[in-house]
Amino acid sequence: MVTGKGRKQINIDHLKELAKLIRYYILTSTTKAGSGHPTSSQSAVELMVALMFGGVFRFDLDDVNLPNNDRLIFSKGHASPLYYALFAAAGRVSESELMSLRKFDSVLEGHPSMRFRYTEAATGSLGQGLAIGAGMAVNAKYIDKLPYKTYVLMGDSEMAEGSIWETIQLASYYKLSNLTGIIDVNRLGQSSQTMLGHDIKTYARRVESFGWRVAVVENGHDLNEVAEAYSDTAGSDRPVMIVARTIKGKGVSFLEDKEGWHGKPLKQEQLEPALAELGRVNMSIRGEIDKPEDMKPGRVAPQAAEPVRYELGQKIATREAYGRALARLAPKYPELVVLDAEVNNSTHTDYFKKAYGDRFFQMFIAEQNMVGMAAGLSRRNKVPFVSTFATFLSRAYDQIRMSPYSSANIKFAGSHVGVSIGEDGTSQMGLADIALFRTIFDSVVFYPSDAVSAEQLVDVAAERKGVVYIRLTRMSTPVIYGNEEVFVVGGSKVLRASKEDRLTVIAAGVTLYEALAAYEELKGQDVLIRVIDLYCIKPVDKDTIVKAATETGAIITVEDHYRQGGLGEAVLSALSDDQALVHVLAVDKMPRSGSPGELLDYENISRTAIVNKVKEIIKNG
Amino acid sequence: MVTGKGRKQINIDHLKELAKLIRYYILTSTTKAGSGHPTSSQSAVELMVALMFGGVFRFDLDDVNLPNNDRLIFSKGHASPLYYALFAAAGRVSESELMSLRKFDSVLEGHPSMRFRYTEAATGSLGQGLAIGAGMAVNAKYIDKLPYKTYVLMGDSEMAEGSIWETIQLASYYKLSNLTGIIDVNRLGQSSQTMLGHDIKTYARRVESFGWRVAVVENGHDLNEVAEAYSDTAGSDRPVMIVARTIKGKGVSFLEDKEGWHGKPLKQEQLEPALAELGRVNMSIRGEIDKPEDMKPGRVAPQAAEPVRYELGQKIATREAYGRALARLAPKYPELVVLDAEVNNSTHTDYFKKAYGDRFFQMFIAEQNMVGMAAGLSRRNKVPFVSTFATFLSRAYDQIRMSPYSSANIKFAGSHVGVSIGEDGTSQMGLADIALFRTIFDSVVFYPSDAVSAEQLVDVAAERKGVVYIRLTRMSTPVIYGNEEVFVVGGSKVLRASKEDRLTVIAAGVTLYEALAAYEELKGQDVLIRVIDLYCIKPVDKDTIVKAATETGAIITVEDHYRQGGLGEAVLSALSDDQALVHVLAVDKMPRSGSPGELLDYENISRTAIVNKVKEIIKNG
Repeated sequence: MVTGKGRKQINIDHLKELAKLIRYYILTSTTKAGSGHPTSSQSAVELMVALMFGGVFRFDLDDVNLPNNDRLIFSKGHASPLYYALFAAAGRVSESELMSLRKFDSVLEGHPSMRFRYTEAATGSLGQGLAIGAGMAVNAKYIDKLPYKTYVLMGDSEMAEGSIWETIQLASYYKLSNLTGIIDVNRLGQSSQTMLGHDIKTYARRVESFGWRVAVVENGHDLNEVAEAYSDTAGSDRPVMIVARTIKGKGVSFLEDKEGWHGKPLKQEQLEPALAELGRVNMSIRGEIDKPEDMKPGRVAPQAAEPVRYELGQKIATREAYGRALARLAPKYPELVVLDAEVNNSTHTDYFKKAYGDRFFQMFIAEQNMVGMAAGLSRRNKVPFVSTFATFLSRAYDQIRMSPYSSANIKFAGSHVGVSIGEDGTSQMGLADIALFRTIFDSVVFYPSDAVSAEQLVDVAAERKGVVYIRLTRMSTPVIYGNEEVFVVGGSKVLRASKEDRLTVIAAGVTLYEALAAYEELKGQDVLIRVIDLYCIKPVDKDTIVKAATETGAIITVEDHYRQGGLGEAVLSALSDDQALVHVLAVDKMPRSGSPGELLDYENISRTAIVNKVKEIIKNG
Repeated sequence: MVTGKGRKQINIDHLKELAKLIRYYILTSTTKAGSGHPTSSQSAVELMVALMFGGVFRFDLDDVNLPNNDRLIFSKGHASPLYYALFAAAGRVSESELMSLRKFDSVLEGHPSMRFRYTEAATGSLGQGLAIGAGMAVNAKYIDKLPYKTYVLMGDSEMAEGSIWETIQLASYYKLSNLTGIIDVNRLGQSSQTMLGHDIKTYARRVESFGWRVAVVENGHDLNEVAEAYSDTAGSDRPVMIVARTIKGKGVSFLEDKEGWHGKPLKQEQLEPALAELGRVNMSIRGEIDKPEDMKPGRVAPQAAEPVRYELGQKIATREAYGRALARLAPKYPELVVLDAEVNNSTHTDYFKKAYGDRFFQMFIAEQNMVGMAAGLSRRNKVPFVSTFATFLSRAYDQIRMSPYSSANIKFAGSHVGVSIGEDGTSQMGLADIALFRTIFDSVVFYPSDAVSAEQLVDVAAERKGVVYIRLTRMSTPVIYGNEEVFVVGGSKVLRASKEDRLTVIAAGVTLYEALAAYEELKGQDVLIRVIDLYCIKPVDKDTIVKAATETGAIITVEDHYRQGGLGEAVLSALSDDQALVHVLAVDKMPRSGSPGELLDYENISRTAIVNKVKEIIKNG
């Protein structure tokens, strides 16, 4: 028996029995599945048993949504057999359900997914869990102001991922004393030893240098030592890292600390001697998880937002309208928070920062952590707007990809898109952001052209659940919509139309203005064209596009974006079942520094290019 | 005068005059441009002057390709006014050329691009330079075995980027004593103070904890102190980091250490008082850069590769063929090196590792650094093959995006694509990799279906300059091509064709086999279809696709990839000018764990789905 400081007495023998049961579950469920990661699960058994059943972790198993529940994230998602076994040991997953691991109809997937009710965030792409945990910790400390704690189990291999060191910096900056990371240092990666092997002191020194409180556990299978580490660090005023030396495959002699056993279940004939080594397993023992205090965050009632107020023709960049919209809509959406990667005077989240500083989080130039923390905040019911240059959002593509798998409700805003940013040059231009966000599962992609549509679409985005991307332009553009104009998911606007339209130009953002200028020029030559503002690129307004193709015969799309995966291909996809002619104008040449006008001409996406293309089609048609 | 250990005497007064001239160039060129980053340039002037003109940096300005030249990378690419000014001070950029900064026709772009002959790598996306430098250092130490050194100038803001901490770990692991990072700690980011402000001791402690030799420079504008830091660390047996406290806007009192001046040039009326503060500038002074010893790496003559040897029908995964091809082709391409993110027993680069261990670099689970190092190796004339799970390559999307801007010659191979990986579940599935790699400037995207095409396409990739992506399948597939079959960039193979074809199915990878199975089933029902193996998705074989559309009337594409930006949209793009009917079968539902067959059916991309779609079209047509 050891007594945690200020905590209840821990029955180590009981925990040992639970550890044995959990190892039994790990080995049998993976053998039954025929795939999976028993050895990476075995190394962390005691780390998790002491946490969950040793009086540290507080969670109401009957109410996963309880705001004050502690949170546990398996950043090493491949240790899912352990994850599920813990809940089996808590009596919440049956033995027969465990035996469905990795089967098509089972909620116990290869890596934890949201189909399993206790999953806090989908994992399996390494190095992402700590940021998600930090988002939950930020929520507890700065927003909901609740005492719950967040725990993140990491593998030692994933410590190579830079994303983790981003979070280590940010958690230190935000003094997240309610965040505990646990590194399961089992020495072995998938194919070889990690960079540091079992050198836990060096892990400790590195993490400590970032201002964390570190507890070193020499033997991560000694439940007393593990329990003491949790107990010793419980009152820390800094984020906590438990660095534990463990043995991969612990508990089965022919697996222990051996290479060649990563991600391999035992064959049936290997299982028997393995189970024999465990000894007698008490199949009826169950662990208890303490419940937290039933506390709720204070709720702020939503208030009506001020109306949008622009004048037609007023010149203002959509990125500025975005920032203004956030500030304007803050009362309407009390759960709206803003994260920005140190460019708030470019994305214009500075409007929000000035007015609602307590809901603004400076994320510095660490985009992966920013998106991970947004996922964590979202899992705790906040609505994060994540903002930086469009092209730098791509730095966190993998985190963005994973976010819908976590059912995360995140809004992304990317500024400085296309060659029209001008002099800063290629490295700063968002040229593939439409393509990237279109690939995100169940995403919405908005591309407003003026301040009114930008403001209204921020509102639509806040209302919509799931991932929404808003593409923002650097340069000022004139307001073309009345303040009351309505914009919807899957919508578009037909701006110019007549029965004499010779063809249709579909555009958005800066190229919409090029299309409108081309319209005027062609009109002067008695050539009428239809012009459509495709402000929603995903889902795309198929009906309007098909109607335009049918009525006008041909489509020209024009976009300040690479040809691949952009607006043009979205239109092509909408028309795939129709026999329409589509001519895609897009960025094809290596961009460079220059004025926006020079670059639009250079890439053949300016008014001149549109006029020329229209004339060419009419001539050939 | 100070004397560097073992180095020539340094004339500090001369360096001071050069620093003054360089500040003059920075201020005047940015004011003339009307945009750019003078203040971020001013802070690093002495750090760079002491390096380049203080006898540390060795470079033959007349021969940028000299293998033994030291290398300098401006990771803080926005300090390009300083970068160009250094070469102006060396007499290699004229004053009038400097005044063309950021103009359309100028090679002096907003961020260094390859159009400027001294640029080692395009920068401007922060946090990438150190990895590129590490790649050059790895080349010097392990491959070319030359004594050149690599220097990387970083900003303090970018230290938040996890990518830098990946490189800090890897450079330590590889003991890159020939790599020197320089952190210009000027305290201020774009919109606010950095997380650590001027706390250079904490930067030092953090970097030191990773096994680097760190020199702290209390005053980064004291040329003596800076020169001493270079001198003291010259013989280090570990990677070196110079951590220097500097002042943003140094040299102009109203800019120094002030917020609100990031990325803002002086107006003409502000320029005069600023220049007055510099005092008399010696416009004719020039700095000398010492030349290195003229040493060359030993060259290995290319040898003929063994032929490809498979049997028709033999079942083998393309990922395994990829690994075998690398080993087989190693003698043919002596510059070929392999980087793998700790999954070499999955990507099967283990074949290469076993046979050519000295050309294999274990990159651990740090994809961003892996791609950056590949860019550095490529800049030093190596041909890196970069391998991991397809979906984890997306972790380094921003580095991949930047690589063609650096004219980098990198081959990427992504394994474990699509839902057909099965039980591991969604997090491990490459479902957007085609879309992502299609957006990379001037890229080639290969998707082989069998071992022969995989092997041949690895050969084609090695031969081709620039970014090539090879999409690899986890499961075994039967060999369908003879060993001598020829595959080319932009090619495809028509596998089944007749004059009675009712429509065409275009596929690649696992879905090609589904298409062939559908062919057999339909043939049994007297329905003939054309089947095309679209092994090259970018550039796409437009002629063959148009011919098939014309001859057979309709196209079905089927791919184990999300609908957006994939094979289907590549085909739609090829057919945009033709009035063809295209039906895209692709992954639309949230995947999960399950058997490959169950998941192909679930996503409607199996043989059954193809047969049903064919029948539906024929019925409606």
